[in-house]
Amino acid sequence: MEGLIHIYCGDGKGKTTAAVGLAVRAAGAGKRVIFTQFFKDGSSSEIKMLETLPGVELVLCRVQHGFYKFMDEAGRAAARRDFSNLLDAALTRAAEGADLLVLDEAISACNCGVIDEETLAAFLAEKPAGLEVVLTGRNPSERLLARADYITEMKKIRHPYDQGITARLGVEY
Amino acid sequence: MEGLIHIYCGDGKGKTTAAVGLAVRAAGAGKRVIFTQFFKDGSSSEIKMLETLPGVELVLCRVQHGFYKFMDEAGRAAARRDFSNLLDAALTRAAEGADLLVLDEAISACNCGVIDEETLAAFLAEKPAGLEVVLTGRNPSERLLARADYITEMKKIRHPYDQGITARLGVEY
Repeated sequence: MEGLIHIYCGDGKGKTTAAVGLAVRAAGAGKRVIFTQFFKDGSSSEIKMLETLPGVELVLCRVQHGFYKFMDEAGRAAARRDFSNLLDAALTRAAEGADLLVLDEAISACNCGVIDEETLAAFLAEKPAGLEVVLTGRNPSERLLARADYITEMKKIRHPYDQGITARLGVEY
Repeated sequence: MEGLIHIYCGDGKGKTTAAVGLAVRAAGAGKRVIFTQFFKDGSSSEIKMLETLPGVELVLCRVQHGFYKFMDEAGRAAARRDFSNLLDAALTRAAEGADLLVLDEAISACNCGVIDEETLAAFLAEKPAGLEVVLTGRNPSERLLARADYITEMKKIRHPYDQGITARLGVEY
């Protein structure tokens, strides 16, 4: 089966959530899944479940870097180093043999410059034929969009954040 | 924590997938999840994984009814009976005590009349305060939209179906 490329973008709830769901579905079909998250330290509730699933390998940065806009220059340099290493590790593991590679928040990581979009785009252009890849994050570049077979915009029509309700355990993280 | 109501609608990939991801995240946070699907017979790959997760209870119709538009009158009557019973079972289980109730494709089931939207809307209006509810499907009614705290439209920007690629195991089901 040819591996296709998915982008989940937009400002609505459901980008990471759908990437988690796809990892679960693929694992349920006996596929080998590599699941990677940028800007997250692996403490989200979904990680606790994904790590119990046969066929799912987590490639994570366990350091909490927080939001890019709140990092100082040293923090940004550390994030660039850690997330660039994380991308390298994930691409290496995927090239060694996997059916699905999830790169959650990779689009945001490219936009902030903490990973090199050129490296990611080059991988997508020459990836193993059978590898399915999922990228999430707001505002994908034209270069990434051009590579995608699936593009879904998660469009926010209503979100409780707009009523001052902040992220809740088990729902947003 | 107050339980909110989510709608995932639109024509893009990711509605059921996000509902699965949310069930996984909630279970990872120690929550009790009831997961129900209309128009599906429980053979999707994600079900094989969800049924292994602690805290997730599946309430399914194991009969294959197929697409509503292809059913004859007897098939439609059987679907109305089975899916109405399924809704009753799911709402009863959720009312007995749960943190998250996923009603995958409930919106489509209301639109086809195989479940009674009035019954669903009445439940949403008087649901247990702590219960989070997720509904998925295209073209939600104004009545259901009015009840929702989260509304995300999964908007199709690109889908391989448009190039003649049909649903693939581990990706769409």
